[in-house]
Amino acid sequence: MIKASVTVMLKKAIFDPQGMAVKHGLDSIGFKNIDDVRVGRQIIIQIDSNDFGHAEEEVKEMCDKLLANPVVESWSHTLELMQ
Amino acid sequence: MIKASVTVMLKKAIFDPQGMAVKHGLDSIGFKNIDDVRVGRQIIIQIDSNDFGHAEEEVKEMCDKLLANPVVESWSHTLELMQ
Repeated sequence: MIKASVTVMLKKAIFDPQGMAVKHGLDSIGFKNIDDVRVGRQIIIQIDSNDFGHAEEEVKEMCDKLLANPVVESWSHTLELMQ
Repeated sequence: MIKASVTVMLKKAIFDPQGMAVKHGLDSIGFKNIDDVRVGRQIIIQIDSNDFGHAEEEVKEMCDKLLANPVVESWSHTLELMQ
């Protein structure tokens, strides 16, 4: 079993209202030294396979086809074997 | 400047309808070997400080007070120095 951790974030050039809201919230409860906050999605996928090469290709295809919006989002991922 | 990456996920025992929706979506476009999908939030915080000990405490306080719902969510984090 392979565990794929996919992180999808808005591209740097894209305004992130959710991150801005969190930044303001943190500021209002006393955290004054926050420069920037960005909020994205973390998607954990358990793939029933032990073939890392195939899983790698699958994850890329999943991101392109369903998990991320390539117009405004970028994504990264890691794979690890689950015991 | 320190970059804190906070991952907030629903606890394992809590049903994750968003993860289930993604699993069904992946299944419907041909990914039949997916065992489970969980969806959480990734929050990237730029802290204007170079003191890792203090940043560590701040991040814990942020999670407890604003970023996570301790009733149903768990969180983890990493810190790294930004160039």
